[in-house]
Amino acid sequence: MNLKEKSLEAHQKIRGKISLNLKANIDTVDDLSLYYSPGVAYPCEAIKENPDHVNTYTWRGNTVAIISDGSAVLGLGDIGPEASLPVMEGKAVLFKRFADIDAIPIVLNTKDVEEIVNTICAIAPSFAGINLEDISAPRCVEIEKKLIERLPIPVFHDDQHGTAIAVLSGLISALKVVGKSLDNLRVVVSGAGAAGSAIIKLLLDYGIREIIAFDANGILSADKPTQDPLVAELSLITNPNKYNYSLEEALVGSDVFIGVSVGNIVTKEMIAKMNHDAIVFPLANPRPEIPYEDALEAGARIIATGRSDYPNQINNVLVFPGLFRGILDSKAKYIPASIKVKVAKAIANLIEEDVSETYIIPHCFDERVATTIRDVVIEEIEKLRSVGTDI
Amino acid sequence: MNLKEKSLEAHQKIRGKISLNLKANIDTVDDLSLYYSPGVAYPCEAIKENPDHVNTYTWRGNTVAIISDGSAVLGLGDIGPEASLPVMEGKAVLFKRFADIDAIPIVLNTKDVEEIVNTICAIAPSFAGINLEDISAPRCVEIEKKLIERLPIPVFHDDQHGTAIAVLSGLISALKVVGKSLDNLRVVVSGAGAAGSAIIKLLLDYGIREIIAFDANGILSADKPTQDPLVAELSLITNPNKYNYSLEEALVGSDVFIGVSVGNIVTKEMIAKMNHDAIVFPLANPRPEIPYEDALEAGARIIATGRSDYPNQINNVLVFPGLFRGILDSKAKYIPASIKVKVAKAIANLIEEDVSETYIIPHCFDERVATTIRDVVIEEIEKLRSVGTDI
Repeated sequence: MNLKEKSLEAHQKIRGKISLNLKANIDTVDDLSLYYSPGVAYPCEAIKENPDHVNTYTWRGNTVAIISDGSAVLGLGDIGPEASLPVMEGKAVLFKRFADIDAIPIVLNTKDVEEIVNTICAIAPSFAGINLEDISAPRCVEIEKKLIERLPIPVFHDDQHGTAIAVLSGLISALKVVGKSLDNLRVVVSGAGAAGSAIIKLLLDYGIREIIAFDANGILSADKPTQDPLVAELSLITNPNKYNYSLEEALVGSDVFIGVSVGNIVTKEMIAKMNHDAIVFPLANPRPEIPYEDALEAGARIIATGRSDYPNQINNVLVFPGLFRGILDSKAKYIPASIKVKVAKAIANLIEEDVSETYIIPHCFDERVATTIRDVVIEEIEKLRSVGTDI
Repeated sequence: MNLKEKSLEAHQKIRGKISLNLKANIDTVDDLSLYYSPGVAYPCEAIKENPDHVNTYTWRGNTVAIISDGSAVLGLGDIGPEASLPVMEGKAVLFKRFADIDAIPIVLNTKDVEEIVNTICAIAPSFAGINLEDISAPRCVEIEKKLIERLPIPVFHDDQHGTAIAVLSGLISALKVVGKSLDNLRVVVSGAGAAGSAIIKLLLDYGIREIIAFDANGILSADKPTQDPLVAELSLITNPNKYNYSLEEALVGSDVFIGVSVGNIVTKEMIAKMNHDAIVFPLANPRPEIPYEDALEAGARIIATGRSDYPNQINNVLVFPGLFRGILDSKAKYIPASIKVKVAKAIANLIEEDVSETYIIPHCFDERVATTIRDVVIEEIEKLRSVGTDI
């Protein structure tokens, strides 16, 4: 049986990868009186008196909504809310498996930014956090920004920040292996959507100075007009020399290539013209920007992909479970920007002693990762609070 | 320890009466490939091709949203979304315990009818049904009506219809015990909110002709002007003789009293003036319209309350689990009005042979109830489909 047959059979057999579990036994009239009417009135009154008690007496403190409009799902594109549900359920499985978080898939019947924001604000009292998923760019960036402004609970778009943190973590390890510093490093990024834009911003935060970015219309440059607000923003912070290069030209002499775009747009010849000890992350999935074998043959020293069947899988699942665990445990009102570089460094530090060309990022079942990230997040939140930050 | 202490301790200990359960094991890279990327793409594509497959490959077919704005919670009134969450969780527990349905509490940060309707329509693709809960009248009636018009999935406001079905079921049994027919039966209803309005409509559907209804402003009558659209509607279908009675006057010679209003508004003297073999359902909770003992002493032959510590508890939990089970199992697009009387009759039929003054409704742990209701619902849906109804 191939993977398609296996997957359809497995999904059909269980009809849902998640279900609801009862933590309260309801076997007698006394149980009903305790957990439902009339006993349930007492926690209601306690929460009415002090809203923080909602996390004491209900599941809310451990519950996150996974929200998508189904507009940018995996490599499948805009497949709509119902068809995106298997992915959101899969995400819920990962939240539970790696961080014991109760995450609920909510798929939306609208792609309108205002409607999405209003809907999420309306249902927000049910949850301790919002994980946005598979919403297409540039709307995803706008939606996340508006939600952060309006909501008193953390909002996280995993396709942006989870991916960016995992990429930075792999890059930190890769730079250790090849022994290059951040000075004079040239990074070429292909893809300026949700993932690409967040990667670019995080690499700049980390201290990388020269990033040259490409989207389907070619190089991003401050000299080039665009209607896309996200591309306009990225054009101002990338390509400091305002080159008008093709991707091929930009790669000549560059140190790092990061692809979050489409398969097979980079050739062996292009990789061969990069600087010595080239770091190549063709992350498009399942077809990378250049096949793993080709990049290796062309002389790339370190290669990471999004696939589990090659070394160095850059996988969000390393990031979001531990990050949300820390955020929920510290009851943070939002996710501070300062956390992202720290989490990436912490993941890299975990494997520092064993780091090599084929081990720049921990395995996704490495139990240390989620707890390490959780501790880093809690520490950072406490530090911010100790200097008076309202978080 | 009193019930308050017990309930707060029990709720705090478990921090949520529900949690998420994994039906898929994720222990290896192969598991990840199967249930998440890349394997999850195949069910996504299958649903994209045929939207009905969402119920084959995900939990949606067994999943219901329990939605409240926290505006009319138990006897507590408008306590807001967070404080209503313990009740919604309790409801989720009952859905799972009595019908193995995965029901998700969603509490809303708005009381605006249009915003509530838009929000529920936006999140509807995530669920196979919508259970509205503890939304104040008359908005609850309007919200339910608009949702039924707009949504391709069943919508049910339990405080209206669940209560009405349970009341009718008890009344059918009570009439058997006292040997009265529907002819010349006078029913007095106190309360014209969510429950009262639905009870009145269902009793009329069942064939009762004279219902006299009261709200906080006194008797409902076509001669009496009102701003409340729900009261206006009820005024036209109740009180056919356009009496201008007080509650006390209306009860003289009446056969049935049903209270879904507030405690202690009916005296022993008022009950004593009812017709012989009086049926008295003072359902206000926890303080009934007249205490059980007083109604008994005043000569009522059959008394039912909403409380578990007296005989004949009229309890919604008898109705909604089996009803939703049948609706989900038959994949119905809406809940047909014709189902309500049939379900009430089926519940009454279950106990027909043992019926007595103190046994007019099955016990809430009677395992036969949910399966019986499910079967009645499935049969009715199939019957409707067999005559070409698009349901």
